Amino acid sequence: MSEAREKSAGRRGGRDARHAARKDPTTVHAPYIQRRIPLTEILDDAALEMIEANADTVLEEIGIEFREDEEALKLWHDAGADVQGERVHFPKGLCRTLLQTAPSQFVQHARNPARNVTIGGSNTVFAPVYGPPFVRDLEGGRRYGTIADFRNFVKLAYALPSLHHSGGTVCEPVDLPVNKRHLDMVHAHIRYSDKPFMGSVTAPDRAADSVAMCEILFGRDFVDQNTVLINLINANSPLVFDSTMLGALKVYARANQATVISPFILAGAMSPVTVVGTLTQILAEALAGMAFTQLCRPGAPVVFGTFASSISMQSGAPTFGTPEPTMVLFGAAQLARRLNLPFRSGGSLCASKLPDAQAAFESMQTLLPTVFGGVNFTLHAAGWLEGGLVSSYEKLIMDADQLAMMEILAGGVDTSENGQALSAIREVGPGGHYLGCAHTQANFESAFYRSPIADNNSYEQWDAEGGMDLPQRANKRWKKLLAEYQAPDLDPGKAEALDAFVAGKKAAVPDAFV
Amino acid sequence: MSEAREKSAGRRGGRDARHAARKDPTTVHAPYIQRRIPLTEILDDAALEMIEANADTVLEEIGIEFREDEEALKLWHDAGADVQGERVHFPKGLCRTLLQTAPSQFVQHARNPARNVTIGGSNTVFAPVYGPPFVRDLEGGRRYGTIADFRNFVKLAYALPSLHHSGGTVCEPVDLPVNKRHLDMVHAHIRYSDKPFMGSVTAPDRAADSVAMCEILFGRDFVDQNTVLINLINANSPLVFDSTMLGALKVYARANQATVISPFILAGAMSPVTVVGTLTQILAEALAGMAFTQLCRPGAPVVFGTFASSISMQSGAPTFGTPEPTMVLFGAAQLARRLNLPFRSGGSLCASKLPDAQAAFESMQTLLPTVFGGVNFTLHAAGWLEGGLVSSYEKLIMDADQLAMMEILAGGVDTSENGQALSAIREVGPGGHYLGCAHTQANFESAFYRSPIADNNSYEQWDAEGGMDLPQRANKRWKKLLAEYQAPDLDPGKAEALDAFVAGKKAAVPDAFV
Repeated sequence: MSEAREKSAGRRGGRDARHAARKDPTTVHAPYIQRRIPLTEILDDAALEMIEANADTVLEEIGIEFREDEEALKLWHDAGADVQGERVHFPKGLCRTLLQTAPSQFVQHARNPARNVTIGGSNTVFAPVYGPPFVRDLEGGRRYGTIADFRNFVKLAYALPSLHHSGGTVCEPVDLPVNKRHLDMVHAHIRYSDKPFMGSVTAPDRAADSVAMCEILFGRDFVDQNTVLINLINANSPLVFDSTMLGALKVYARANQATVISPFILAGAMSPVTVVGTLTQILAEALAGMAFTQLCRPGAPVVFGTFASSISMQSGAPTFGTPEPTMVLFGAAQLARRLNLPFRSGGSLCASKLPDAQAAFESMQTLLPTVFGGVNFTLHAAGWLEGGLVSSYEKLIMDADQLAMMEILAGGVDTSENGQALSAIREVGPGGHYLGCAHTQANFESAFYRSPIADNNSYEQWDAEGGMDLPQRANKRWKKLLAEYQAPDLDPGKAEALDAFVAGKKAAVPDAFV
Repeated sequence: MSEAREKSAGRRGGRDARHAARKDPTTVHAPYIQRRIPLTEILDDAALEMIEANADTVLEEIGIEFREDEEALKLWHDAGADVQGERVHFPKGLCRTLLQTAPSQFVQHARNPARNVTIGGSNTVFAPVYGPPFVRDLEGGRRYGTIADFRNFVKLAYALPSLHHSGGTVCEPVDLPVNKRHLDMVHAHIRYSDKPFMGSVTAPDRAADSVAMCEILFGRDFVDQNTVLINLINANSPLVFDSTMLGALKVYARANQATVISPFILAGAMSPVTVVGTLTQILAEALAGMAFTQLCRPGAPVVFGTFASSISMQSGAPTFGTPEPTMVLFGAAQLARRLNLPFRSGGSLCASKLPDAQAAFESMQTLLPTVFGGVNFTLHAAGWLEGGLVSSYEKLIMDADQLAMMEILAGGVDTSENGQALSAIREVGPGGHYLGCAHTQANFESAFYRSPIADNNSYEQWDAEGGMDLPQRANKRWKKLLAEYQAPDLDPGKAEALDAFVAGKKAAVPDAFV
């Protein structure tokens, strides 16, 4: 069935919701995926326990460096760690003990409460690509991203029901000053979408600005008591957290906002070339970083993150969609569940320069394991191209179509009497045809996923319509979505206050472009 | 790592095998995948038992038609079924009882014993696309298939180590007479490959010719006691077996050759629009067809087959790569395992007219579930395009690359001391780099899958090399493989006898083109 399916009941149920979905498919939708199929788990308990023991050894004997952050080192010392210079050695069990205050799942609030997402448990939240300096579309080709592109991607993510989240740096707006662009990015997420979003992590004061803008939007007390931002804190693998990331981490954790502690791994360069070795390092880094959030504010929501790919052993270039990182994803998800913490990984990752078959093969090699493996928060779920260097308009549309299918797959099988359809088998009988039978007619609208961009027509019809490939059809669709885009209402007082905040911050310091 | 990886030890082990693989990657390979990761199973026992009970109800109350085959009806009557006209009603448990003589797994012998495949258990065998009347390549576009194309596809499947099987009708050679082309097809599989292959099912005498050619190749007694052919018997869903398929079935089962009993389902047309309803019908059809093989010859190898997709509820056109058929695949695999019988389904299916991103998305939506769901025999694993109307040269190459990755993924995680890589983590330490470390150097060749066609280079390098998409690179590769193709040795006496058999058969009757 169509995209209307992914916009299922919301807070209305049954016939009403289906009727509403038919009438206006953009108004009713599921805010995130609730998985009802079993997990795929590729490691047995013995392997998981071995990895945990090895990670404990790494944490104790090798340690993790917390660089250029005296406060972090003092916090670790006071918590009982053995701090030698910038190297922190963790007594066995310390990180796990600290993590007992971290929630197993949490709600990230959106300014539209119907868009709130629950991160953790059996839920999966899809967010768009994060971080590319370039954008690409069919006509414009590859070029540096601008704030206009950024706003377009926010608008498109808002318009695509299979994206549950507005994301963060959907592309880098390189036309804006480095020290101020975070203001326009956060502002765009607030202004052009009502889905949950991410804050800036490139400097502590930019993180603080992100929190301050949320305080204007949600109220100061609400922000202190609730999670309204989720923020990506990458480890500087192997075994290092740098002062930039630590600075942002501290701001967010102390503001009770969520952090995703993500070892960023290209295996073979930043971790060993093996799956188990990579998982060991990921677990050690994630444990140390996540535990640190609880030193900053016990109870602050934190997500076990993993970005893992591998490199070409010929060229050193990152590769995507290969089997070894898929195994890392499955294994890391299992390790996170054993910690009873939410897990971030996966997406629609690829190395391809074009939204071609390579891009699709590689993306699906990551996306299906994302769903089968039980990832809770998925950055880069749509729009990622060229190893994350490019945000692609067409790929955003193509990926969103796949994401919509993931919701159905994760929803599991209907075993109700209607699902069993014995009446249909009886009615049709041997040699008959099901198209016209009563059961088919009754289930016509909800029976099958209906892609807005896949072509299933006859060769002759497809040829007569121009013989387009998938990116060409996706191109038409994003233009249509942008043309039809309508901004969600925003309280005028809050809008004004946000404008004033951004203007004030911009006026306070000169532009910087490095 | 490279394709050399999929050509692992063979009968030589360790260092020797690796050395051989480096020197000549076409000589050593794994003949099929042995899965060492857990299965993904989406249905619980209660759902499976309900489907089994419903299928029993269908078999008993509605029944299955065995059309225009008096012998089949008599066999069923004698076995205790209630035969009314062509409609056979099965007392509860009859089919399952009959199936107790069917083997849970079996070896299909190839003329090169190193290529023998075991079908069933935790094994997966990949065979190329089956049945398309058209072929497509980048320069020639879409056109009717010829025997020259057929031979090319056999040669390419022989050259691609991730294809374990030569398949059957890799494309329809429409330039040959309908009543004789099976001779040239079987001959091509024997002559141009030494992998296992499939026999003709389009008429009983063509099935008999296929067996006769195998008797020349393997010896009459060997064929009677061993499986050398696997053959695709489609149900005429819903709930019908026709005389053509029954005729071929009887020939093969009585010759102790394997049959794949495959309900061929486009859900919404040939089965109910629901997953459970479709599974119920599939199980009923498969049980009846498989049990019939045991009436023909108890102990004859038989495979539970499922080809299931769905249709567009707008146009009636078949769709591929959507979530509902994926759920059918997972469920049918579970049902087959509960019967302790081998299972056939899946592949790299797509509706796309081009080897573009749609083709790749759709193919992976089927292929990954094929592996995670535990399919034992996979037709259409490579080369399928346009809903099975087209055998694509480029897609064959693209799919084979994905199949090679499936072998690694299915192989599971290395938990050995080398796999744990603690020494590497110690050696490199915080902030270091793994590329030069001893562990990386020692595992350099086998660390990561190396695609022969994916591009992971920098944008600049890719652009300088022509900015090719994946089909363009695949085009170069199939031409290279064909140019380098060398036929496997065939005993001259057998070759001569086969030539004589084919010539004699061709001379015996006039050509027919319908």
